[in-house]
Amino acid sequence: MTTTNTGGGAVPARISIITLGVADLARSSAFYEALGWPRASASSAEIVWFRTADSVLGLFPADELAADAGIPPIGEPAFRGVTMGINLESERAVDEAMTAAVAAGASVVKPPKATSWGGYSGYFEDPDGHLWELAHAPGFAFSGTGQLVLP
Amino acid sequence: MTTTNTGGGAVPARISIITLGVADLARSSAFYEALGWPRASASSAEIVWFRTADSVLGLFPADELAADAGIPPIGEPAFRGVTMGINLESERAVDEAMTAAVAAGASVVKPPKATSWGGYSGYFEDPDGHLWELAHAPGFAFSGTGQLVLP
Repeated sequence: MTTTNTGGGAVPARISIITLGVADLARSSAFYEALGWPRASASSAEIVWFRTADSVLGLFPADELAADAGIPPIGEPAFRGVTMGINLESERAVDEAMTAAVAAGASVVKPPKATSWGGYSGYFEDPDGHLWELAHAPGFAFSGTGQLVLP
Repeated sequence: MTTTNTGGGAVPARISIITLGVADLARSSAFYEALGWPRASASSAEIVWFRTADSVLGLFPADELAADAGIPPIGEPAFRGVTMGINLESERAVDEAMTAAVAAGASVVKPPKATSWGGYSGYFEDPDGHLWELAHAPGFAFSGTGQLVLP
């Protein structure tokens, strides 16, 4: 198949995979499965992948992920400098998503509320403390498969 | 438009946006622009977005990102527990991408080499130390727009 890049040259504008370092692969995999996310059959005992409308989500033991990059692991930071957002079509969908995330084992970090930018959002953390924002941003559009499309 | 979710219930399988906390918004934005990535017109003086084939990339001041989630910021960890991967069609494309990333201001963390899983990959870090893997994984397919598609 011929690939048409959406931008970039030798470094095409892609985020093919987001890999989260996890302490317990089985526990973390069970969490995303409890959300109903589709586990890719390419997954193995060493790494687990979930398909999404956007980038692929990878789960990999944190110490091995650090070793793969060749840098020392750290312990449990308060904030890791990265957040992942799940954009939704309405404020109600944000509330319902937070309830479902908690039911799957997430912890509420910030209950959903109106934001300074005119939207509505809240945060939860997964079993390893990775931060997910649930957000409704008025005017943001989605493709037919749910991929966020920005102008 | 009617949206067909690729999986999940109230928490659809989406990673709409990956937001990286950065120390200097102008410096970091210039780096991704130097890669040729398309800056979204929805960007503002407070937050900058780039469109990709997969999730949207957001850049946001690290201290504000921590405050937005309501948790304390940290300093400069050795490893943040998250990596982002740019998958490419060949080993040569990985080498060329690493050269281009360095030309744009990235630092090589791990030069590209054959991996234990039969692929070829290397890592660079952006101006804030966020880790990007450049990888060729034999058998992995892309959509017509370059989005990674896993079975």
